[in-house]
Amino acid sequence: MRQTALHGYDILGLRDMSKDTIDLILHTTAKMKALLQQGKKDMEFLSGKSVAIVFYENSTRTRLSFELAAKYLGAHVVSMSAQGSSVAKGESLEDTLDTIAMMAADAIVIRHPYSGAPTVMASKIDVPIINAGDGMNEHPTQALLDMYTMLEYKGCLDGLKVAIVGDIYHSRVARSNIWGLTKMGAQVVVAGPPTLLPKDIEAMGAQVSSDVEYAIKDADVVMGLRMQRERQSAGLVPSLAEYTRYFGINAQRLAMAKGDAILMHPRPANIGVEISADIINGPQSVISRQVTNGVAVRMALLYLILGGGDDIEDIG
Amino acid sequence: MRQTALHGYDILGLRDMSKDTIDLILHTTAKMKALLQQGKKDMEFLSGKSVAIVFYENSTRTRLSFELAAKYLGAHVVSMSAQGSSVAKGESLEDTLDTIAMMAADAIVIRHPYSGAPTVMASKIDVPIINAGDGMNEHPTQALLDMYTMLEYKGCLDGLKVAIVGDIYHSRVARSNIWGLTKMGAQVVVAGPPTLLPKDIEAMGAQVSSDVEYAIKDADVVMGLRMQRERQSAGLVPSLAEYTRYFGINAQRLAMAKGDAILMHPRPANIGVEISADIINGPQSVISRQVTNGVAVRMALLYLILGGGDDIEDIG
Amino acid sequence: MRQTALHGYDILGLRDMSKDTIDLILHTTAKMKALLQQGKKDMEFLSGKSVAIVFYENSTRTRLSFELAAKYLGAHVVSMSAQGSSVAKGESLEDTLDTIAMMAADAIVIRHPYSGAPTVMASKIDVPIINAGDGMNEHPTQALLDMYTMLEYKGCLDGLKVAIVGDIYHSRVARSNIWGLTKMGAQVVVAGPPTLLPKDIEAMGAQVSSDVEYAIKDADVVMGLRMQRERQSAGLVPSLAEYTRYFGINAQRLAMAKGDAILMHPRPANIGVEISADIINGPQSVISRQVTNGVAVRMALLYLILGGGDDIEDIG
Repeated sequence: MRQTALHGYDILGLRDMSKDTIDLILHTTAKMKALLQQGKKDMEFLSGKSVAIVFYENSTRTRLSFELAAKYLGAHVVSMSAQGSSVAKGESLEDTLDTIAMMAADAIVIRHPYSGAPTVMASKIDVPIINAGDGMNEHPTQALLDMYTMLEYKGCLDGLKVAIVGDIYHSRVARSNIWGLTKMGAQVVVAGPPTLLPKDIEAMGAQVSSDVEYAIKDADVVMGLRMQRERQSAGLVPSLAEYTRYFGINAQRLAMAKGDAILMHPRPANIGVEISADIINGPQSVISRQVTNGVAVRMALLYLILGGGDDIEDIG
Repeated sequence: MRQTALHGYDILGLRDMSKDTIDLILHTTAKMKALLQQGKKDMEFLSGKSVAIVFYENSTRTRLSFELAAKYLGAHVVSMSAQGSSVAKGESLEDTLDTIAMMAADAIVIRHPYSGAPTVMASKIDVPIINAGDGMNEHPTQALLDMYTMLEYKGCLDGLKVAIVGDIYHSRVARSNIWGLTKMGAQVVVAGPPTLLPKDIEAMGAQVSSDVEYAIKDADVVMGLRMQRERQSAGLVPSLAEYTRYFGINAQRLAMAKGDAILMHPRPANIGVEISADIINGPQSVISRQVTNGVAVRMALLYLILGGGDDIEDIG
Repeated sequence: MRQTALHGYDILGLRDMSKDTIDLILHTTAKMKALLQQGKKDMEFLSGKSVAIVFYENSTRTRLSFELAAKYLGAHVVSMSAQGSSVAKGESLEDTLDTIAMMAADAIVIRHPYSGAPTVMASKIDVPIINAGDGMNEHPTQALLDMYTMLEYKGCLDGLKVAIVGDIYHSRVARSNIWGLTKMGAQVVVAGPPTLLPKDIEAMGAQVSSDVEYAIKDADVVMGLRMQRERQSAGLVPSLAEYTRYFGINAQRLAMAKGDAILMHPRPANIGVEISADIINGPQSVISRQVTNGVAVRMALLYLILGGGDDIEDIG
């Protein structure tokens, strides 16, 4: 039995992931997507494996995407969500994950409100851990599906100009995309209100601007981020109306990007706030495609981590 | 591969469903029930298909019934419930269903507190939608299982007298049964307090009475509906005790129906309110049978909608 | 098709379970664990069977353990939890379980806050019921996994000295262990604050002491129980600090047991309260092993109850 290069690995973030590993994941995602498009959803690559999905934050869509990915590959799936006070106790998380590992789970997918929680857990638990979003740190599977979507439309990540617009400060999606895209040779320009631009972005390799039109100009990819309404009450944006006026992505601004630029958003969008209604389902929008690719990228990761007994080249 | 006549269709309600389609569903239900009774619960008709169950109202029993139906046929099942404020946003529902459709789900089962929500969604989403109850509008799978149960006991729906007793106004079960039963040639008489009798019932083809004994007299089927306790505080019934006195189904009233009449209820019942304790598990009650038939009818619908590659005549 | 001796039986508690039955379960658990250790998690022993898991109390870990056990054996699993007010209505529970049984479920696993609820239900429902914990009464699957773990380490239960320390009064784990262990010939000594020692323990066959060191002295097994923090506010323990001082299991006290004694706890532990941090993951701790054995014992029970068409001797 040949094992994949990622067999038994954790997927914690893109900051420390090599370019080769990203290439392998994107390559495998393409194979998984081809299988999905052939309607193959009763595969046996992970037959006899079990995946536990442990969410300490509500996220129906990411949970469903992982559940379906695991089931399409033939794995058993169990799912739990925990909210509220029990989250606060560090030992409780370790205890929970250790318990799950001891139940013969083969991989644990975890979402947690604390940045770094999956990384700490991975150091304590033998079972491979996939980070499904941790605090304001990373959301590697979202960034990988974003990168795969760009690859589908643009053929290559190297040399792309990607504009990421919105609340960068609170966005693990932005952070993972910046780490991943710059590593793959893309140029990333982020734009947003100064209060929502973290200080460390330039050190991560992205350009920073508070001028959304500068960011979007000649971009190959324009990515909006969800603006949380609570930012307004926290005083981080003057008002949502003002946010929309200065930073909202609309037809006029999108027209400043390249003619064949694609429009992305990690969903769910606040339509009329960070993105206008006329473009969200327009010809440049690939937002629905991102969802489909999300299942494919999660299938690729589960396949690569849990081995499955087949080499990647044997698929499909 | 032959496809069923319902392949790819939505199941939104019985109002607009043809008599032929109802016949096909009831015929397929009989075949599914026979398979269930042979203990066949690892079938492969829907192998490689995935069904998403999306409930915006609590209903463990209907959800379990759909889950088991899908699993018995070999489909993957994912389930989500959403309550509270997120329901209020129309676009959120579309966004959620579109996301699920994009995850390669093959059918979506939806329950929603707003009448018409599944219909609106079906017009926007390509994936077939099954209405598992929408507001005060329709609950087609419940009515189909009710009709199938009547068919089992009575052999034919045409010419049956069916009395439906209780809170007709708020009951999607009543509405779907009226549409379906009258279409199949049954005579439906509804009875309940005047405040709980909607104005449009006669236009739907049912007779209306505020005299429960008139409705039950010589009936082949007596169906009670759940009386919501909150109706009393809303002033829609004088008191539950009075409701029971004037409209509760008890042994004395049931005796006015035909000697071989069957007693039905969509569960859960308020025993001692709309139905008395001595008859609920009595010889005329087919209430437990309704539950078993509920799984069979949902298997039939999923099979017919998702095709499965076999013609209906090939089953069993 | 040969059927197991437990085919169709309920598992309600160890009080009324025969020594032979316990032997059969522990013997089958060993076979299931061997299969698990060979990585066999896509077995077909329960293919075509469905297991419903119905929890009226929160317990993610026990629920996951049952779910995985059923899935590893090839059964369909559906899961529901109910909390709050609906629990209060006795008829609602019967109605719920009857509904599930009528959906062609082959076994129901139930956890309920009321002592005796599963027993009452088993007398009314034809489908086999497994008690996953009922009030302060029994938790038979936990006790069976505890006994199996002792057997793994000690080779034999007969003649073992087992010390159970902590809040005996509220512990269904303690009760089931006492019934089971004494039946198998072990000597059980329980220790805890006088306010947390029920009067009927000696009648159950255990020795009772308020001196933890007396209980632990020369024990083969030392088992801590979870101390609920709310006991303190209820005045049942003077303070958690005093509890720890007088009854907490620590290195010094554990050293009074036999040199090869094992340390057990049903998880989750309050580290630093009933058990000290230095020993919980120490060389004598078998707490993680208990979790793995929990899946194996639940596999054994489901296999034995649901038959599966193979005799126990044919496994593995």
